[in-house]
Formats: sequence, structure tokens, C-alpha cells
Amino acid sequence: MAELRKDLVRDNWVVIANDRALKPSDFPINRNGVNISGNNTFCPFCEGNEAYTTNELSAFRKDNSKPDGPGWTVRTVPNKFSAFQLQGELDMVSTGIYKSCNGIGQHEVVIETPEHGVEFHDFSVDRIILVYRMLKQRYRELAGDSRIKYIQIYKNRGLFAGASLQHSHSQILAFPVVPDQNKGIPKYFNKTGQCLICDILEQEKEKAERVIYESNYFLVLCPYASRFSYESWIVPKRHTEHFSDISDEEIEDLADVIKGFFTAMLASLDDPSYNIMINTAPVNVPYQGGYHWYMEITPRLLIANAAELSSGYYMNPVSPEISAQIIREKMKKIGSRE
Amino acid sequence: MAELRKDLVRDNWVVIANDRALKPSDFPINRNGVNISGNNTFCPFCEGNEAYTTNELSAFRKDNSKPDGPGWTVRTVPNKFSAFQLQGELDMVSTGIYKSCNGIGQHEVVIETPEHGVEFHDFSVDRIILVYRMLKQRYRELAGDSRIKYIQIYKNRGLFAGASLQHSHSQILAFPVVPDQNKGIPKYFNKTGQCLICDILEQEKEKAERVIYESNYFLVLCPYASRFSYESWIVPKRHTEHFSDISDEEIEDLADVIKGFFTAMLASLDDPSYNIMINTAPVNVPYQGGYHWYMEITPRLLIANAAELSSGYYMNPVSPEISAQIIREKMKKIGSRE
Repeated sequence: MAELRKDLVRDNWVVIANDRALKPSDFPINRNGVNISGNNTFCPFCEGNEAYTTNELSAFRKDNSKPDGPGWTVRTVPNKFSAFQLQGELDMVSTGIYKSCNGIGQHEVVIETPEHGVEFHDFSVDRIILVYRMLKQRYRELAGDSRIKYIQIYKNRGLFAGASLQHSHSQILAFPVVPDQNKGIPKYFNKTGQCLICDILEQEKEKAERVIYESNYFLVLCPYASRFSYESWIVPKRHTEHFSDISDEEIEDLADVIKGFFTAMLASLDDPSYNIMINTAPVNVPYQGGYHWYMEITPRLLIANAAELSSGYYMNPVSPEISAQIIREKMKKIGSRE
Repeated sequence: MAELRKDLVRDNWVVIANDRALKPSDFPINRNGVNISGNNTFCPFCEGNEAYTTNELSAFRKDNSKPDGPGWTVRTVPNKFSAFQLQGELDMVSTGIYKSCNGIGQHEVVIETPEHGVEFHDFSVDRIILVYRMLKQRYRELAGDSRIKYIQIYKNRGLFAGASLQHSHSQILAFPVVPDQNKGIPKYFNKTGQCLICDILEQEKEKAERVIYESNYFLVLCPYASRFSYESWIVPKRHTEHFSDISDEEIEDLADVIKGFFTAMLASLDDPSYNIMINTAPVNVPYQGGYHWYMEITPRLLIANAAELSSGYYMNPVSPEISAQIIREKMKKIGSRE
């Protein structure tokens, strides 16, 4: 099991996966280039290769198909290289001035399609709906374990987004502690009594210079303080704290929005690496107001340099106003052609 | 001039360099690979090409050689693509719930050698001494401007460390605000009355499992909560707050340590991309105890994925105990061969 260690300098935690002692040659990148599993290597996520993954936790299946066999549309398995395990209780250990705790939690892989080489941004709207239904189901399931305090849903696509397998998948990492990365959200609520994300939506709609698209239930925008060039958010207009609060109608609308946004974003940026993250409220902790779930999409066009690592300030060479304009115009153009 | 914008979700700042509107095709990476200036392209940092940089701020030169001409050993120029300018005063602007300020500061490039293709880790001890003398001189100069609050010295080597030019250089970024990335340092001091880094040195020396090397003036170690595999610190044993407090004797010792450490690290990790960062005390702010400058070296063997970006928790697959052992043994082996 991994260990969470307290980083006293940064007043934060680091996950040390010390049972996975990678040798220098095991890393995917080096000065000469890259090593990412592609089309030519064996893929455990393909239909028919179910025996090569851990046993499935959940799957949407055709009638009469059996667990851990073919016949599925979306399939969730525990991450084989999980840093976290749902075993025992949280145990804080002090060694002199240092502090650590055991990596209680769960790490799951949602295999989004049985077909290798079909990417998330090429999915049909119907398949996107299935993926988000599965993510909602897994979120609800994990939230039922009181040892879990935060559920992070995310996706890494492409080498420069930290992906190590090509077959389209999302991941879910359930943490035993609440990361304080989004600490501004409770801070804003405790100061103003308002939801920060609702207030951002209101201000963005007024001038619209950073708005990419608006649907019945969602607003797509490039955030004012974008860490990454072309960083975009898809935000539910309804104030809902947990991702699992999403309704069936909202999932259908979201799938349409995702299809339109990703088609335009991919075409604007020449097929970049990207991440998707779902920010949401903590679970199994005393109630704190002000959380409002939303999706964050980060194209990865630059690698964080030492100025960013050391200061913690991201340097973004493209303003969100320009980013939003480029994707908005592309989305309109593609939409009008259909 | 760039703008610093407040990221209300993360309660942090982002630098938006909005006068450098990079087009999607201007970025160095894409799905197919990379685009980093190498040996075959024109290099403005080479001796003889001084006219292609901005005017030099400082240089160590042979007698009778002229500024902005050949004849230098180490040369500092303003970064041509600087996000910061030392112009006017800090100006905070509010727009609804958003806040921004102008990018007052300075961004310098220290060209560490006139020779293209000779890398920092291949420098002679004498050249390393010159580089650190220059960095100390620039730190002192910048600390004299009261608008500057923090001076970040850093180096990006290789594509996966965020470098965009191959010719060996360091950079100095002088900020108008103090980044709170290292907030644990004042927090620890205010709670215990002790210097965190001194306490870390004491605890690490006891068991020595994370110690790589000890010289007269420095301890080299892999930190307990390493964010990166093989992350290493070079820490002055003497409690000194500012990097510019380094003495001539310490610079000479440091150069020896750097030579030995980098030779072993490069050999252990098959020539990785890496960053160097110097953590130090803020300048021109009310006195706060507990700061202790040190160097942080981060090999970049993985790219941060969405789990890390969203939680702020780095996931490190190699424990610092294993990392320290590998580099320590390589350093001993190389040392004994000499």
C-alpha cells in the first residue's frame, strides 16, 4: 500500500507508492523521446482480454453476457497498479518531525469503450451518456464508504497529459483525506455566504468574453485565471454540490455539450494531449457549503517548468479571452455545417 | 506586460502573459512529438551572437572585451520574452469578484557558457563557481529594488523539464509578490520557534537513509516527502536565509558537490530532463524568521497527470529511500574510480 507523507515545506501531502520501485529504465520518457503503449502492443482494455484486468466492479452489459467476459459497453475495474487499498482504518504515524498515513482509498479504471483506437472525443453522444452514467454510479458506490473523503474523477489523454495507456479510459481516485487544492471555494463561501462557482457563472454571462457555449443546463467557459492555455470549464448552471447530483436530463445535455466542445477543441489545437477533471464536494465529512461540481478540461501544450514548480504560479501564454474566442468560433463553424 | 490574476478556486495566482498570444501551432509539443531548439538551429546564446540577445546586464569578461561582444565566460541578459517588467508601481485592480495586478518584476537569463552543447552537468568545477558567483551577484542587485518581493533562481534542462532552448542557461524571475508555495516554512517557525530546514538536517543525519552525500558545508539528500522520483536537495548546513548569504568558500564547496552529484545522478537516470530551483527567503517584506535557502533538483521522469493536477498531491512511484541509495552508491563508485 502507498503512503501519504506530509510535505512540511509546502504544507501539503505527497503520495509515495513505495511498493512500486520503478527502475530508471521503467519510466516512460527520456531525453530521446517517449514510450507510450500504442496500437501495436497488447491491450488489456480491449474486448476479449477481460482476463488480463482485475475482476470488474461494474459493467453495462448485453443481456446474458457474463462478468469478466465480452459483451460490455462500459466496464469498471480496480486499477491494477493502485496506490490505494480499502483495507483497515486510517493510521497516522509520526517519526520525529515527519508525519505519514496509510493509503486507504480506491483507484478504479472506467474503460469507456470495448474498441481500441476510438477516442473519447470521437464517441457518439450515446456512448458519452453511458460513460457519465457509469461515473455517477461509481461515485455513489464509493461515497458509501465512510473512510473515503474525496472522490476524484479524471482522464489523461496522450503522453503530455500523463497517460500511459492509449485505450480510452477514465479513472476514479478515492482519497482518505480532502485535498485542499480547491480551498478557495469554502473560503469564499465562509466569507460571503455565496457559492463562488454560481457567482463566477453570473459574472461571466454578463460580458461573455470568456464564454464558449451555453446549453440548457451548462455553461462552457475559459476561466478568468486559467492555469493552462485553452483551459475550459463545463459548469452546471444548477447549483449542485456533488457530481452524483446530476440528473438523467442533465447527463443527456452534458453529452451533447461534450461532443460539440471536444470536436471544436481538438480541431482548434491540432489534436493535443488533454486532461478532464471533475471538481466536486467532499464526502463523509462535516457539511461545508459552497461546493458546486464542474468539469475542468486542460489541453497540455506546455510542460510545467521550474518557475512554475517552485512558485506554484502557472504561467499561461494565451489569455482565456483569446482561448475562448478561438474555440467558440470553431464550435459555431462546425455547428453551422451540420 | 503580463497580468497576475487571482485564482479564486485555488486561492493562488496565475500569470497570464497576454501580450504573447501563441497560436496553437506555436507550442513546442503535440501528439506526434516535440520541437526543441537543438544543435542545428541558430542559437542567440552562442559567443559571437550577442547582437541577437537583449543588452547584457552583467558579464564576466576577459580584459578589454566589450559589453555585448564576444570574450565572456558567463553573461546575463534580460529574458527577451519576459512576462515581467520593472516599470511603475504595483496596481491591484478589481473587476466584480475578480482581482488582478500588473506583472512588475524582472526576468533574466544567465548564459552559463559561451559554448553550445556543453551541458551544466559537464561543466568544470571552475565554471560552476563562476555561474554561482554570477547568480549571487544578480540576486543582490535585484534585492535592491523594493518592488521585488521574491527572487526565484531556476534552471530547465531538457524538454520534459520545460526547456525551450538547448544552450545551457539558468533563469532568474523576480516577483512583485511572495508566492506562498513554501508556506510550511514560516508556519513551522511560528509554531515551534525553530528553522524547519535545520530540523530536517538534524533528523536526516541521525538515520542517514535518505542522505546521498555530506561535504564540509552541504548535505545532499532525497527529501522525506519527495514530489518527484529521485528529487534531491543540496542544503547548506549553516543556517543562512538568503541565497546571497553564501560565502566564497561555500560556493567553492558547492561547486564540488554539484559536480559529484550531477555526474552520479545523470549516470543513474540515463540522462534525464531536470530542473534546479533555489528556495530562499523573501526580500523587501517585514522580517519573518525560519527561512533557510537550499537547492532543489528534480529529475523529470513522469508528466503530472490529472490526479496530481486536480488534487495537488504529487504521486511518486520511487521512495526517497530507494532514490537516495541509488544515487549515493553511484556517487561512491564514481568517486572511488577517480
